[in-house]
Amino acid sequence: MGEPSSLGGEVSSLVEQAKELQEKAASLISRTSREEEALRQRVASLDSRINSLRTSKHDDKLEEELVRARYVLSEGDAAAFLPSKSNGRFLRMFLGPINVRANRKNVKLKVKEEYNNFRDRTAFLFLFLPTLLLMLRSWIWDGCLPALPVQLYQAWLLYLYTGLALRENILRVNGSDIRPWWIKHHYFAMAMALISLTWEIERGPDCAQKQRGVELFLKWAIMQGVAMILQNRYQRQRLYTRIALGKARRMDVVWGETAGVQGQLLLLCPILFILQGFEAYVGVLLLKTALAGFSSDWQVITCGLLLIIMAVGNFVNTVQTLMTKSRVKAKIRKGKSRQELNQESGDKSL
Amino acid sequence: MGEPSSLGGEVSSLVEQAKELQEKAASLISRTSREEEALRQRVASLDSRINSLRTSKHDDKLEEELVRARYVLSEGDAAAFLPSKSNGRFLRMFLGPINVRANRKNVKLKVKEEYNNFRDRTAFLFLFLPTLLLMLRSWIWDGCLPALPVQLYQAWLLYLYTGLALRENILRVNGSDIRPWWIKHHYFAMAMALISLTWEIERGPDCAQKQRGVELFLKWAIMQGVAMILQNRYQRQRLYTRIALGKARRMDVVWGETAGVQGQLLLLCPILFILQGFEAYVGVLLLKTALAGFSSDWQVITCGLLLIIMAVGNFVNTVQTLMTKSRVKAKIRKGKSRQELNQESGDKSL
Repeated sequence: MGEPSSLGGEVSSLVEQAKELQEKAASLISRTSREEEALRQRVASLDSRINSLRTSKHDDKLEEELVRARYVLSEGDAAAFLPSKSNGRFLRMFLGPINVRANRKNVKLKVKEEYNNFRDRTAFLFLFLPTLLLMLRSWIWDGCLPALPVQLYQAWLLYLYTGLALRENILRVNGSDIRPWWIKHHYFAMAMALISLTWEIERGPDCAQKQRGVELFLKWAIMQGVAMILQNRYQRQRLYTRIALGKARRMDVVWGETAGVQGQLLLLCPILFILQGFEAYVGVLLLKTALAGFSSDWQVITCGLLLIIMAVGNFVNTVQTLMTKSRVKAKIRKGKSRQELNQESGDKSL
Repeated sequence: MGEPSSLGGEVSSLVEQAKELQEKAASLISRTSREEEALRQRVASLDSRINSLRTSKHDDKLEEELVRARYVLSEGDAAAFLPSKSNGRFLRMFLGPINVRANRKNVKLKVKEEYNNFRDRTAFLFLFLPTLLLMLRSWIWDGCLPALPVQLYQAWLLYLYTGLALRENILRVNGSDIRPWWIKHHYFAMAMALISLTWEIERGPDCAQKQRGVELFLKWAIMQGVAMILQNRYQRQRLYTRIALGKARRMDVVWGETAGVQGQLLLLCPILFILQGFEAYVGVLLLKTALAGFSSDWQVITCGLLLIIMAVGNFVNTVQTLMTKSRVKAKIRKGKSRQELNQESGDKSL
């Protein structure tokens, strides 16, 4: 403490400074809001004009120009002022009406980077945890899984899928054109993890027979883990290649089933199809178990159906993506402009 | 389509417009960032100066001035430029590094309003669902709860507590001074809901005996529902009163256990204490059941412990809040300034 009088003087000056800063803040906020709103309107009207012209028929050269105009709007800082997607029901359910849109380009990229890191970390756990459970089962647990470790794993799955679904919804609001199916797929996976938590882990003498469903599920999870690691590697490489070529909007998320880096794709595609086949097979086996009367819990039937739905959906979306890719290739052969292709590949999450 | 030539002209002009908007956006964003950053630094340094003076000893008049300076900074538009709390581990776990801070005051208030509405909606369900389960048990289910409806209810509880914990963390980032315990309390409740999902719902002839734990839990939930409805009514009234008096920062969240509207408090306080007692009682009963060997699942023991921890924590925090309140009252009697009291009550989430 200094002299009382000088302290008093300083304190009064603090109050004055606070008032001044408050006024400065108010005027900055209102001025920025006005300017942003004006820009937002101009960007929106230009965007809708471009879109309406693109739907009408015209020659390749004009189309190319329109694509370039769209590209300028959506790739640079103007993208922050494009009409934004709303939060969607899932985000509103969990977070309320909070704004999750990042205005600054570098924040958006940080979010995308963190999403990739999250997927990398979880892919290894996705491989490691079920492997550990199955190994301990034969080493220590005499062929019979105890309930607690399996349930801890299922709780982790529920958290993982909730985290992925939340993050992907946030990426969508931030302009990523992730295929809607991959988000829906995570809703189904959340439901399955939740249901599997209520699923009684059978014990007793013939538990190897009764735990066949859990065992199959764990084996499927191991394959899924391998596929996730390959996918992450592939996608990150592909994304960096595309960024380097100036092709991609960096917010694109492609959950696995896509094409581009030819060599790795030859490895990835068969694995994805085998995985989907195995997923459907596990689903059918679960239904069979339920119908044969081994365990007629509704959980077994529902999980079986969910697995089959997810397998079919994954298959359809992978095939659609591959078809889009081959269409793009055909266009390249016809010698169309690069710019148009970029646009197309962006739209389809290729 | 118009004439090819005029269309071509329009398209080229669209490209030009896109480039122009892109440049305008870039300059607006960089200028705004610079101005905001400058303001942020000034606000931060003033804020830390005020705080350091407040910790040193001085007379009431200076204290009052300092409180006023702090109030000007934290209540108006300048608040958007105060150093912000980081997202915290829970939000990072589920959402990643996304910014959930609302800059505009009206957006912040919308978030708060929605949080209150969410609590209102869920309070009624909180009362209704367990009541329905217990009524159906005696009317239709012959005294024996089936697993599925109970598990659906438990899954809803898990969603509810996750939603509350996420929203409260978001409010905290937005400057609400919710007591940390109430958020922690929701983490414990999430854990309990998750564990209860894996809890086998016993069936069979003597299930009334075996389902004693579930029954007690449902009865506790009904009481909790009543208390939540009273709390929500009380807090909203209190908040509006304080806003009207210019006393409160509207982002304050007080989870129940607080004081102010004297009449309702006389009703609320005993109910809260009875509820906390009952919560601890249910916890002890669960432990007893487990120790007596009726059902020695780890779930029963863990839920019992969690209930006791939550009851004790709630009790301690309610008492602390009441003590802060009476301290504030004592100050009023000593004739201290209103402004200082506001500040204090803001700090303590009264």
